[in-house]
Formats: sequence, C-alpha cells, structure tokens
Amino acid sequence: MINNPLPPGSTIGIFGGGQLGRMLAIAAARLGLKSHIFSPQHGSPAFEVASHQTVAPYANLEAVKEFASAVDVVTVEFENIPLDTYEHAAKFAPIAPPPTALAISQDRLAEKKFLTSHNIPVAPYLEINKETDIVSAIYKLGPDGILKTRLLGYDGKGQIRLGANIDPDAAIKAYSGEPSIFEKLVPFKLEISCIAVRDYQGNIVFYDCPRNEHRNQMLAESHVPAGVSEDLEKLAQAYTAKIAEKLNYVGVIAVEFFALAGATETPLIVNEMAPRVHNSGHWTMDACHFDQFENHIRAIAGWPLGSTKRHSNGMMVNLVGHDMDRWEEVASSEGAILHLYGKTETRAGRKMGHVNYLYEKE
Amino acid sequence: MINNPLPPGSTIGIFGGGQLGRMLAIAAARLGLKSHIFSPQHGSPAFEVASHQTVAPYANLEAVKEFASAVDVVTVEFENIPLDTYEHAAKFAPIAPPPTALAISQDRLAEKKFLTSHNIPVAPYLEINKETDIVSAIYKLGPDGILKTRLLGYDGKGQIRLGANIDPDAAIKAYSGEPSIFEKLVPFKLEISCIAVRDYQGNIVFYDCPRNEHRNQMLAESHVPAGVSEDLEKLAQAYTAKIAEKLNYVGVIAVEFFALAGATETPLIVNEMAPRVHNSGHWTMDACHFDQFENHIRAIAGWPLGSTKRHSNGMMVNLVGHDMDRWEEVASSEGAILHLYGKTETRAGRKMGHVNYLYEKE
Repeated sequence: MINNPLPPGSTIGIFGGGQLGRMLAIAAARLGLKSHIFSPQHGSPAFEVASHQTVAPYANLEAVKEFASAVDVVTVEFENIPLDTYEHAAKFAPIAPPPTALAISQDRLAEKKFLTSHNIPVAPYLEINKETDIVSAIYKLGPDGILKTRLLGYDGKGQIRLGANIDPDAAIKAYSGEPSIFEKLVPFKLEISCIAVRDYQGNIVFYDCPRNEHRNQMLAESHVPAGVSEDLEKLAQAYTAKIAEKLNYVGVIAVEFFALAGATETPLIVNEMAPRVHNSGHWTMDACHFDQFENHIRAIAGWPLGSTKRHSNGMMVNLVGHDMDRWEEVASSEGAILHLYGKTETRAGRKMGHVNYLYEKE
Repeated sequence: MINNPLPPGSTIGIFGGGQLGRMLAIAAARLGLKSHIFSPQHGSPAFEVASHQTVAPYANLEAVKEFASAVDVVTVEFENIPLDTYEHAAKFAPIAPPPTALAISQDRLAEKKFLTSHNIPVAPYLEINKETDIVSAIYKLGPDGILKTRLLGYDGKGQIRLGANIDPDAAIKAYSGEPSIFEKLVPFKLEISCIAVRDYQGNIVFYDCPRNEHRNQMLAESHVPAGVSEDLEKLAQAYTAKIAEKLNYVGVIAVEFFALAGATETPLIVNEMAPRVHNSGHWTMDACHFDQFENHIRAIAGWPLGSTKRHSNGMMVNLVGHDMDRWEEVASSEGAILHLYGKTETRAGRKMGHVNYLYEKE
C-alpha cells in the first residue's frame, strides 16, 4: 500500500522483461520515474529502456531481496511469476497487484472457482486429474470442449480440442497427465475485453471495451468501438469491477469475455482474466490521452489515475512471427502507427510488435 | 547518407543527454531501435532510457570515434555540439542533420547572413566586435535593440537589452567584448514556429505552426492552431522548406518566426532556427499520430516519414524550475498530460517537464 504518490525520480520494479515490461518502463519514464527490470533472460526487450536491470532466475530469492530493496514499488508484467518470488519481494517493498490476483490467474481451476463463487458466469467446466476424468467430462458436458492445463497456459499453449468428430482416444493419448480442466465449448458471437485500472483508494476507471479477433489461438486484432450495445459493455465493466474489488486489486486488470449467441440469461461469460496490462489494450497507446501502461504506473505509484477517454476510434493489429518481415511495408503505410518490441530473434508465434490505426470518431 | 532504412535493432547515436535526447531515445525504442547517448554529464536524463551510454567530454575524439563506430547513425539533440566533434563522428558513421546546419545555428551572425543570402527576412542587425561598434549600431539602427553574443546563446542567455530609456553606457559596460550582433527590436504581433521534417530524398513535411508565448525570455506555452491566417502559415512553411533545402537538411528542423504588426511587405521574419527537435513541438507528442521525435528518428534512419496530421487541438505548457514543485497538482488535473524529464535537481530556469492539454478540433 502506498499512501502518498511516489515522487518523480522514484523507481518502479518490474518482474518480467518482455514487451509489456518495456512499454511499462517507457510510460514510467514519461512521468519522470525510473524502472528496474528483473528478468531471467539476458537481452530482455525491457532492459533497453530501463535504468536498472537484474538478470537472475526468479527462484533466486537473494536477488529478489536486493531488487525489491532497491525500488519503491514492485509490479509484474505477466502473471506467471512464481508466487514465492512475488511474496518474497513484498517483504522489502510495496507490491501491486496483490499476490492473490496472480495466484488465481496462474491456475485455471482457481480462476473458475473464484469467478463462480462471485456469480460471474464462465463456461461449464470440470476438473481433470487423470485420463478417466476426461471420459467422465465428455459424458457430463458433451464432447465439444477444450482440455486446458491448469498452469502456464497462454496463447493457446497446453490446449487440446475435443469434439464430436474428434477421436477422444487421441485426446486422451495427447493428455499430459497434468492437472487440467475440461471446458465446454460455448458458441459465442464475439469476444470483447475490459481493461480497467483501480487505485489504492478503490477508484476504478474503464477503457472502452475492444472487440478482439484471434488467429492460431492468439490475439490478432482489437477494434474500438467494439460495436456491441452499451448495455453489454456496461455489464463487462460491472463484472470487471466486481473482480477487481473482490481481489482488492491495484493496477491495470484485463478480463476477456465471450458474448454469447442468441438471447440468453448470461449474455457474457468470462473467458479469462489477466492481472496486468493486456495485448488487447495496446490501442490505448495512440487512441487515448492516457494509455494502459501509464495508468498502470500511475495506479501502482499511488498517483491519480489518468482519464480513459478515447480521442479516436482505433484498430490494433499484432505483428506475430514473420509478420515482422513486413516492417518496412508497415512503416511506410499511411497512418500505420508502428510499435516494435526490440526482439532480436524472429520466431514463429512470437509477438514482435503491433500496429495501431486511428479513425475519426463519428 | 543512408540509402536503405536502418532495420529494427539498429542503434541511433545521440550527442547530448538532456530531455530532447531522452524523448528521442523513447521514440526510437517504440520503433524497435536502440539508442546510444553521448554526454559529458553523469546521470544525464537520456541515459535512463537508452541501451548504451558514453560519458566523456565532447573534446575526447577517441571516445567520439568509439561511439560513432558503435552506432548506425549519429544525430544531435542540441546545436551547440562542437563542430569538430560532430565532424569527427562523421568519419565513422552517417550523420544527420548536416554539420553546416549546426555551424550556422551556432553563430548568430552566420545564421543572419545565411538567411539574408537566401532572401529570407530577419530583423535588421549589425556585427559587434568592440565597444564603439555598439555606439555605431545605435546610430544606424536606433537605440531599440538587443545585443546578443554570436555563440552559445539560448533562452535569453548572453543578451543585453538597449533602448531609448536605457543608458547605453551601462550596456557598453555590461558588454563582454565577445563577438556579438546588435539586433534591432522589431515590433511584432506574435511568434509562431514551423517544425518540419525532411528525409534523405528531399521529401519535407510540416506540422501545423504553433503560436508561442515566452516568459523570462524562455518558451512558456505553445498553442495549436496558432490562430493565424493560412497564408501566413504557408509562408512560414515555404521559408522553412527553403532553409532545409539550401542546407540539404535531414531530420527535424525548427524555425521561429515573428509575425510583424501592421501591413508590411515582410509579414514574417525569422527569429532563429534550430537544427533539432524543438520545445515548441512538444505538443506533437499527444496531439499527433506521429510526434516530432519519432519523425526525427524516422528521417535520420532513412525510414519513410510519418504523417504530421493532428487529431486534436493542443496547448503545451513548460514546467520550468520550481513549477516542478506543483507536479502532484498537475498530475491530478483533469486532462493534463504530464511529461517529466527525470532531472534530479530542480533549479530556477531549468526545464523540468511539460504538460500537454488536448482539445477537440472544431
């Protein structure tokens, strides 16, 4: 907990050195704040724009102590920081978001249980711990579903699709034996996400919800406005506010929702939540006066939150893997606002950058 | 000269580590480019967001060689880099803007001569090398004028005001003996500046001209639109284009103009020019899709220039010296987009940050 805004010149400690850490560090710099990045990888993208760097495994608690003692607040750029590491840092510096938010987001089962315990709808699911659980799940929920590992799943990693036309034996063979869930496939019209920012006093503000499109189980595009009803957007915000409040959350939180097809009592279900800045909020960098990165920094540093007002409509397109080879074409394309992450190696499926396009609001 | 765009991962070398270097480095990072800052001062603001730093005096040509050899293009954040230093760097890396632009901007007399040789109007002036030149200048141009040192003058430094009610003996006594000019005071309505970007191929684009207001001989505010006629703005752009073309300029160039009072054959005269990004262009950071910093980086890296289109009207207010003490109030003020420079020591007259305010375009 930070009671007074951290003065300019203070240092933000960030676990994780990827593109989100990089964009957080840039936002901090704009506010006259320094960044200290903790990452196990040499040459992490965020290092280049931070005034301090620690290269150490997350399990090195001595390094964690030194890092946390050297900064004024600690945050994360991704949710899969080991909880022990994050909680150890908390002994030496204020941390935000709260560790509970990470614990829940790290475990799909815990997340589902947390959400349903607060009457926030999710797709029907069952816990899977052994092969026979899969058979039983198919029996109870029907064959159309996805087997997802509870831990360390993102961008479609650790997921196996099941369905009426898919041989369940193959799925069972592919099943790793790891604690998982079987999630019923719910027919949905579209996905929107809600990016919210909450401060230490419990004030919460929301960006307009983007509509998200995926390719290869990875976010490809976000569009604002989403083109959904105001009611639906307000419902997404209400669910997000409830989640943030129950977690006593501080910082940016992102919740992905499926808007269900047809008239239903539950027009929205939560797909997943992320206790951090989010890829589907990258359009805020150019379409808003204050972007999600600055607002995360403002929130965790105890500053007043910036307005989430949007001056333009926008579309964000991810540059994934060898999309990057087109950088020169994109850079010369009228109105394409390019953001590259400084990753030296282009690999298939790796997020290399994104492009924002702005349009006048009607 | 750079014939092909520098690929992401390339390094921009920047002479100077102040706020302009800092904002250039941030813009470079957004494009996946690294920055290497050369500054004589430890703890320079730009160091915090750059991947490489050299701390050495500009006169250390060995350090200059090492720096220039390690980067892909060299630029400057201010015009008073010693010319020898800049030209030495040119032996080991492409440089932009051209050294001539620095040479001219470093010397008020050379600047006036350059401008008049190209029929670009300036205030009447005379060269001053000794005390009696002052007497003679007053005789020829009248007493209302300013004595300005030829070298190293900025933000009103090295200037002595003369006038009908000012004892010329005092001015003569205050005169340092340094090579100077006496510039006739020209009654003007307002100041505007033109921020232009020119690439290696000679393409040039212009931001809308801001109207600038000064306090204590230092820029205090910039407003866009300037509220002047389209003709006047077009004239400012035409003069700027001519200057840039004659210099074979690459990068952002800023030219300050006085709009003269009353009907006159010369509605605009050049006050001064700066071969770099400029304080009066800071509003572009929030009111434009591509700001002056990104466009300078794009130009010198051989990238296509970004649009100079403005999505909002804007006002920029400098935070000078102890204005900085109000940071918390500014940070909580609705719509105030704060940019702080990470300077550890607040000194009177020191530029500590700026604030952009955006307004909807009519």
